[in-house]
Amino acid sequence: MSYELTILGSSSAIPTVEKNPTAQLLNANERFFLIDCAEGTQIQLRKYKFKFQKISRIFISHLHGDHYFGLIGLISSMHLLGREKELHIYAHTKLKEIIDIQLSASSTDLCYPLFFHPITPNVDQLLFEDKKIKISTFPLSHGIDCNGFLFEEKRPPRKILSDKIKKYNIPIDQLKDIKWGEDFLTEDGSLILNDKLTIANKLPFSYAFCSDTKYSESIINKVKGVSLLYHETTFMHERKDRAEETNHSTTIDAATIAKLAEVNYLLIGHFSQRYRDDSILLEETKSVFKNTIIAKQGITVDFSKL
Amino acid sequence: MSYELTILGSSSAIPTVEKNPTAQLLNANERFFLIDCAEGTQIQLRKYKFKFQKISRIFISHLHGDHYFGLIGLISSMHLLGREKELHIYAHTKLKEIIDIQLSASSTDLCYPLFFHPITPNVDQLLFEDKKIKISTFPLSHGIDCNGFLFEEKRPPRKILSDKIKKYNIPIDQLKDIKWGEDFLTEDGSLILNDKLTIANKLPFSYAFCSDTKYSESIINKVKGVSLLYHETTFMHERKDRAEETNHSTTIDAATIAKLAEVNYLLIGHFSQRYRDDSILLEETKSVFKNTIIAKQGITVDFSKL
Repeated sequence: MSYELTILGSSSAIPTVEKNPTAQLLNANERFFLIDCAEGTQIQLRKYKFKFQKISRIFISHLHGDHYFGLIGLISSMHLLGREKELHIYAHTKLKEIIDIQLSASSTDLCYPLFFHPITPNVDQLLFEDKKIKISTFPLSHGIDCNGFLFEEKRPPRKILSDKIKKYNIPIDQLKDIKWGEDFLTEDGSLILNDKLTIANKLPFSYAFCSDTKYSESIINKVKGVSLLYHETTFMHERKDRAEETNHSTTIDAATIAKLAEVNYLLIGHFSQRYRDDSILLEETKSVFKNTIIAKQGITVDFSKL
Repeated sequence: MSYELTILGSSSAIPTVEKNPTAQLLNANERFFLIDCAEGTQIQLRKYKFKFQKISRIFISHLHGDHYFGLIGLISSMHLLGREKELHIYAHTKLKEIIDIQLSASSTDLCYPLFFHPITPNVDQLLFEDKKIKISTFPLSHGIDCNGFLFEEKRPPRKILSDKIKKYNIPIDQLKDIKWGEDFLTEDGSLILNDKLTIANKLPFSYAFCSDTKYSESIINKVKGVSLLYHETTFMHERKDRAEETNHSTTIDAATIAKLAEVNYLLIGHFSQRYRDDSILLEETKSVFKNTIIAKQGITVDFSKL
């Protein structure tokens, strides 16, 4: 099972030859979720050898161009390459109009089903849930409607020892309950306690994505204890005033949220293009929250190693 | 005076790591015109070291994504970088809605004046004219509204010999007429014939851009005798049926138009991604029209050398 996050782009505002704006690909055990989709994202996906037809769900945090201008191109390329599989998009309502008007301008009837799931601004919302994952959204504070996303793996707390299944002749339909902590009653009436049958499983992974936002303590509870928190870090703290004016965060803002939310690791990016040297942003963030990683374009974070 | 065309992208349909879809930059004596604007064009402009704020007019042939998906990103970046200068866009009406809805979604009030000039489908139309250049458009045949563009330099047919200005004391206000072939009457009443004062000037440059189109003889008269004709060449001629189905042209189609229109040079591109080797397309085109050049991404065509 692999849970990995690949940074397709992490710069702010304007794409350059070396740096693409925000887009991330989350591989949740071979289910692929795209988070934000700046111009050039489809090229980044190709560059890093991802088959973009595998993406099943796309989450767009807000409608500033550096977070979504690549979406219509990706949707179109999926069509031109003959996609048949459903695609689900989660975003603010206006994006549906933006997609529809562009498909209509080119007289394109997509050859695959595209489902648009509107995000309601300013409230928490469950976006998707099945046996293995829960994906929800929560509001950020960025001047226009803007949302963060939380991906939470559902992993049973216990792992069954395979020799015990044989030994006690445990029926398949009871395995799930045992993984979730139930004891087992054998055919001859003996109660086998759960800790004789199982060992502790790894903790489930959780990933919170806090796209553009100013410092907001309301985020803390939403991202409490996650394995990895991405929090934008547009400015060094000496430019706190500029951060507030532009509804962005500083190094210290991001680190403070990470610290108060007791997350495991913090991932920072969306640095202002004024900074040539990322390491000064990393250093300042680490002064408050040590487990900080830079969201460098092209890196893959393996959740099993956090 | 430099007249140059740079190919920012020339592939068809889908951007890849190596190949960008259609975008061309025409430098008409330091006035910069962008023709089509696929996703990633702003990055291509940076890659080839063009200051994109210098672009004054943008021409979009039609609303298939591989010809305009990069426009909104370029418009936004021009804004974020504080452009003050006017920008003029010439395109089919729907593009204005597409731009407006995206600017509105991000609550962006552009900091520079953006003028949108609608192209009327299915008719010839003068788009811009001043003392130095005339830019017009003509319909192509591509299933949706699609237009070609014609850029014609206005260059006087004669060049004045500077020593004659002094010798005959020619007033400045008469220089223009003499360049256009008038004789000169001196103060003492002598008539100096034009060919004593001037030499032949270089021919004015002209560039015709025929974006996506099926073979259409109506194009011939529109591009008659141009210095350079770009004509799409999506398929080898063995796939003529496929070209017709998809409203595209073959090598032989493009070459035939070039030949019948008696153009000076033909530039071919928009090759289907099925072809790994461009040279077979070039060879087949040359079998009908010898002066053919491939629109390779990154090349610059200097009109003075055609």
